[in-house]
Parts: sequence; structure tokens; C-alpha cells
Amino acid sequence: MTFVNVGTLGVHPGARDAVVAILTRRNRDLETAGCLLYEVGVNDDAPDTVFVAELWVSAEAHQASLQLDSVRAAIAEAMPLLSGPMDGYRFAVTGSPLRE
Amino acid sequence: MTFVNVGTLGVHPGARDAVVAILTRRNRDLETAGCLLYEVGVNDDAPDTVFVAELWVSAEAHQASLQLDSVRAAIAEAMPLLSGPMDGYRFAVTGSPLRE
Repeated sequence: MTFVNVGTLGVHPGARDAVVAILTRRNRDLETAGCLLYEVGVNDDAPDTVFVAELWVSAEAHQASLQLDSVRAAIAEAMPLLSGPMDGYRFAVTGSPLRE
Repeated sequence: MTFVNVGTLGVHPGARDAVVAILTRRNRDLETAGCLLYEVGVNDDAPDTVFVAELWVSAEAHQASLQLDSVRAAIAEAMPLLSGPMDGYRFAVTGSPLRE
């Protein structure tokens, strides 16, 4: 069942663009792993936060992707830039008004 | 700039499926209004919550969609089923590892 993971990452002041750069670096492994959508962004009302919204073919595909070398390397690279707070939620997609 | 709106809606016990049905009813107005993705779902860890993740061509397109007759009708229909709590966040998309 299609799966959504959305989240926020707290970042150290001034580190937002660097974290965005890491998370938006082209990674073809993600498609292979079943990632359908992976949008990274910002909101100037929360300048020390990076936002992510991901759509995956399944919860299992998302979980497995965390073990990919390229994903682990990106996490390791971003980690020192993160301030700690993380939030978000996950859900199984039941439908869309854009589809029959 | 592409815009993400993600959110949770608290629903009265037993009302989740009814709210999901309202939100996933086919609505072609949304595409016309600039909606690129509108996923509705559930998480059994939070049985009285409906989750939504939306991608729009712009924040303005999302805001304008709230005035569409079909959207206002859906909101009015769902309202008595909602228990009050709403959460979520909005962000401007800066990129994706799935695109160059």
C-alpha cells in the first residue's frame, strides 16, 4: 500500500541551505528502492527547519531505503547540522480525489 | 513555487472512513486549480485521525482552491465529523533527489 512519510528536521541556525543541499542531491537509488515522490523544502516562518514529504510504494520500501549506502551517507553528512527536534507522521494512502 | 500542505484531522470515533470517503471523492476541480498530488490516508496507530498530503503548483493555488464550490461543500460535509484537533505544516519546495 502506498505510504507517505512527512517530517520536519530542526537544523542549527544557518545550516538550513546545507541540509537542503544534501537532501536534494540527485539519488537514483531512491527510485530503484520504490520512492515515488521526495519533496524537500523550507518555510520562512520556521527558518531553522527543513521539511520533507515522501511517497513510497510501501512502508517496507521506505524502511529498507534507510539501509542504502547512499542514504546512510546522506544521513551521516547531515547529522552534525541537525539540532535535534524532529517531527512528522506516516500514513498508508487510501485514495486521492485526483484518481477514480 | 511548488507548495506542500500536509495535515492531520482529528475525527470523532468511528467517523474516519466517512471522512476519508469525502476527501477522496473524485474532484476534477482540484486539477484545474493546480493540485498536483492529493493523498489521503490513515494510520492505525492513530485511529481517530485522517492524514492528508497535498502538492500544489503554488501556495496561492492552494489558498484559492479553498473557495471552490466543490471544496467548500466537502469541507461543510466533513465538518460535523471532525473532533477539532488539526495539525500539519506547509512549505515551499526547493528540490527533490528524484530530479536533476
